[in-house]
Amino acid sequence: MNFELTVLGTGSATPTLNRNPSAYLLTVDNEYFLIDCGEGTQFRLLEQKIRHTRLRHIFISHLHGDHYFGLIGFISSLNLNRRTEDLTIIAPRGLAEILTIQLKHSETILHFKINFIETNPDKEELILDHPLLTVETIPLHHRIACCGFLFKQKQPKRNIIKENLPENFPIPYILQLKEGNDVFDELTEKTYKVNDYTTEPPPAKSFAYCSDTAYNELKISQLQGVDTVFHEATFTETELARAIKTNHSTAKQAAMIAQKSNAKQLIIGHYSSRYDDLTFHLLEAQEVFANTHLAIEGQVYKI
Amino acid sequence: MNFELTVLGTGSATPTLNRNPSAYLLTVDNEYFLIDCGEGTQFRLLEQKIRHTRLRHIFISHLHGDHYFGLIGFISSLNLNRRTEDLTIIAPRGLAEILTIQLKHSETILHFKINFIETNPDKEELILDHPLLTVETIPLHHRIACCGFLFKQKQPKRNIIKENLPENFPIPYILQLKEGNDVFDELTEKTYKVNDYTTEPPPAKSFAYCSDTAYNELKISQLQGVDTVFHEATFTETELARAIKTNHSTAKQAAMIAQKSNAKQLIIGHYSSRYDDLTFHLLEAQEVFANTHLAIEGQVYKI
Repeated sequence: MNFELTVLGTGSATPTLNRNPSAYLLTVDNEYFLIDCGEGTQFRLLEQKIRHTRLRHIFISHLHGDHYFGLIGFISSLNLNRRTEDLTIIAPRGLAEILTIQLKHSETILHFKINFIETNPDKEELILDHPLLTVETIPLHHRIACCGFLFKQKQPKRNIIKENLPENFPIPYILQLKEGNDVFDELTEKTYKVNDYTTEPPPAKSFAYCSDTAYNELKISQLQGVDTVFHEATFTETELARAIKTNHSTAKQAAMIAQKSNAKQLIIGHYSSRYDDLTFHLLEAQEVFANTHLAIEGQVYKI
Repeated sequence: MNFELTVLGTGSATPTLNRNPSAYLLTVDNEYFLIDCGEGTQFRLLEQKIRHTRLRHIFISHLHGDHYFGLIGFISSLNLNRRTEDLTIIAPRGLAEILTIQLKHSETILHFKINFIETNPDKEELILDHPLLTVETIPLHHRIACCGFLFKQKQPKRNIIKENLPENFPIPYILQLKEGNDVFDELTEKTYKVNDYTTEPPPAKSFAYCSDTAYNELKISQLQGVDTVFHEATFTETELARAIKTNHSTAKQAAMIAQKSNAKQLIIGHYSSRYDDLTFHLLEAQEVFANTHLAIEGQVYKI
């Protein structure tokens, strides 16, 4: 049972050699959810040795290039690698048209189906109901239509204490125990009490992805109590005017959202190319919200 | 006076971590010509510290993604960097539509003008007449419309022997000498003989770019006597059947084209991801055409 975030790209629009454009991979159990897909993301996934058969959902926040220009290359490569599993892409209106026209001109016929789900930047909505989690859109305030995503894990099942179980214990019984029910075995007339054979499951986790966005308190009611929030911190407070002008946030503003949302952990990223050193981002945010971490490419963050 | 090729990406369609998709930069004097622009090319250009103000022409051979998926990102970054100079893109029909739709959805207004010149894959034609060179298309035999490019440098001017000239020698006189004309100075009634003040210019160079293509002898008449030919060598001869099936070439076939074209130098590239070691590519080609070089990323090849 894991619920963690792998950081693939922490840059913003202007390219630099020390950061890649936005891309994040959420891992829940053995399932991957890719969030944004800037240019070169397929190479970052290769570096991380991600098995693409376990990736069935891609979320694109908005159609600025640093958040999606890597998608057509990734899709083309999936096709070359003979993918047959469906792929669901959750994205703003327009992306389907962009991908379709590129596939048309390369005369590419995909061996797999893409299901497009369009986000609506004007309202929160349940955009995906998956066996492992639900995903809600988070309307963000940016220069073009943009949604963040709130991933809410469904309640995990109870943990089996393997060493307590008899040998060859039937799988249907195990499933019943995991659901929290006692098991009565008619053959032996024995009752297996759930508390003797299982332990409490871990609590369901939640993760909010908020990029790109101006400081905006409207989302804090939706984010209340979230375990981890990723919030963009393109600038520090010295560039507050620029943040306001470009509909981005400062590290302090990211921390204010985390604090007001009563989040347990904040990860900041989407750094402007003007910053080599991110110390001030971290200090500024930690002054407001202590449990802040810098998103660093290649690192994995437990949620 | 230089005429050289910087190799930025030597891979083919399937992505690998040790090669980048196709991109080559031809430098003629102080002017850059970008040939193909696979995903991530803008980062390769950053690595090479290429000043984009000297780049006014981009050539795209065909609309398979490994040859152009980096273009929209590069154009977007040029715009963020406040480029105002016109950019000319020479490419197959369809690319303008692809770029336009992506700019539309990101609500991007370019601060510079893009001139699109459409290539015709069915015939050789003069596609660019530039002060430094002419460029002809080379119809290639691939799965979709595809053109190579033949760059023919215009005759360079004569070289001035600076130490022989009087001080403050007028620039119009220098230009006359460079053109190969004697100069008569009316004030001093002195004649400056071109042979006393200049040396022979270097010969005009030529470079042919042939990627992607099946083996096809039709182009050898157009390529006769070319200084350097870049020819794709996706496979070695052990994969000849696959080369034929996918409309690609082997290293030996690339060498046969160079030999039959009486080229002076061959550079091979566009290697399939199945090859880590390129020794066999080189040996196989050199058996047919001795002056063969492997395209290696980051290296610069004199033409």
